[in-house]
Formats: sequence, C-alpha cells, structure tokens
Amino acid sequence: MIIRHTDSSECAPLPMEGVQGVSMRVMVGREDGAPNFAMRHFTVDPGGHTPRHSHNYEHQVVVIKGRGEAFDQGEHRAISEGDVLFVGADDEHQFLNTSDEPLEFLCLVPLHGSCGTPVPGS
Amino acid sequence: MIIRHTDSSECAPLPMEGVQGVSMRVMVGREDGAPNFAMRHFTVDPGGHTPRHSHNYEHQVVVIKGRGEAFDQGEHRAISEGDVLFVGADDEHQFLNTSDEPLEFLCLVPLHGSCGTPVPGS
Repeated sequence: MIIRHTDSSECAPLPMEGVQGVSMRVMVGREDGAPNFAMRHFTVDPGGHTPRHSHNYEHQVVVIKGRGEAFDQGEHRAISEGDVLFVGADDEHQFLNTSDEPLEFLCLVPLHGSCGTPVPGS
Repeated sequence: MIIRHTDSSECAPLPMEGVQGVSMRVMVGREDGAPNFAMRHFTVDPGGHTPRHSHNYEHQVVVIKGRGEAFDQGEHRAISEGDVLFVGADDEHQFLNTSDEPLEFLCLVPLHGSCGTPVPGS
C-alpha cells in the first residue's frame, strides 16, 4: 500500500499551452503500478486556470481546497471544496481559480484514451 | 459535466459481510456513463470499519474528512484528511475509524476486475 499526503508544495509548474498559474504532481500513476487510472494533484493560483480544451478521455475531479469555477458548455459553474466533477470524453472544459486563495483539486484520468494512446500525466 | 457535492447524509448503510458502521454512495459510476472507473463516497462511524479482504482490482483512496487507520500487510498505518492511498489488486486491506469523529473517504475502482467481471459498487 502506498500512502502519500497531498501537499501543494510538492506540485511542479505545469508547462502546457493555455495554462496559467497551475502546478501538478502525480499522486498515483503508471510508475506506481497503477493498471487502469491515475490520480494527479493540481494547485491553481488565484487568477490562474487550466487550458480550455477537450480530449478523448474522461476526468473525475475532487475539489480538496478552495473554490473557483468550471467552464461547461458555455457556462461557468461554481465549484468548491468537497465537490466531485465528472467530465465526459470530448467535453470542452476548463477550471479557473476566481478566488484569492489557492484552488486545489485531484483529477483522475484513465491510463489510455479511447484510441489506446497513453494519457499525458498518467 | 456532472457536479455533485460529497454529503455524508446521502450515503446509505452498506450491507456487506465484515462491515461495521459504514455507509456509501456512488458519486460517479457506470450509470453516469463512466467508461473506465468509478468513485464512491464512504462514511465510517467512530469504531466502524470496512471488511478486511482482498480482490482482483485496485483501489485509489482519498481521505476527505477525519482520521483512522489502514490495515496493510499486518500493520495498522495512520491515515487522515488529505492522504491518498493506493491499494494494489490482491493486497489485503481494511480501513478503520479509530477516532471519535466520522471518517470519510473517496474510493475509486476500475469498472472491471482482472478477470473482466464487473466490480461491485461501480
């Protein structure tokens, strides 16, 4: 059994187009022997955001600290600690920190997208 | 996009052998169109525990409230809010609430075990 604590200081800046003020750490992934899905810890600085994009695999997200917004079909929906999100494959989405405190969430992905290609960051 | 809040009052008692004081709710599962893995919300009452068992699929767990212990290879390891756990397939495990406050965690499973059979509660 692996036990690791979610510590935002362990997240590293995410160099990805469309990203602002986001850092990330793989909590459980293929390097740990995870056979099906992976868990990543994201920290979004106040005013920061993930890219607005879509891809051929789903997300399951847990907000563990702070609050912000999720872009969903042209709408910005409020999210906060204790919320769980399901983003289907090919659904455009974005997570934004509209508050003045860090926003932290866990984002889970399958190891492979619908075409069998490895999912980045898994 | 589905957004749901983790609310322990939405969890229902889990009628399962070896369980004491545990309730559960599927947060995202096959009925929501999840194609690969499912997320369940567990609440364990003070003094309660999940069964000590193993199975042919892995767990990824996030402790979202409280504290307790995880049984791992003959040892009881402390767990608390913000901890992430990876339990490999076929590893014996158990989660216990040794505190006097509720213990809440999210437990993710693949939709199918290693033999292709559907995972209960997914």
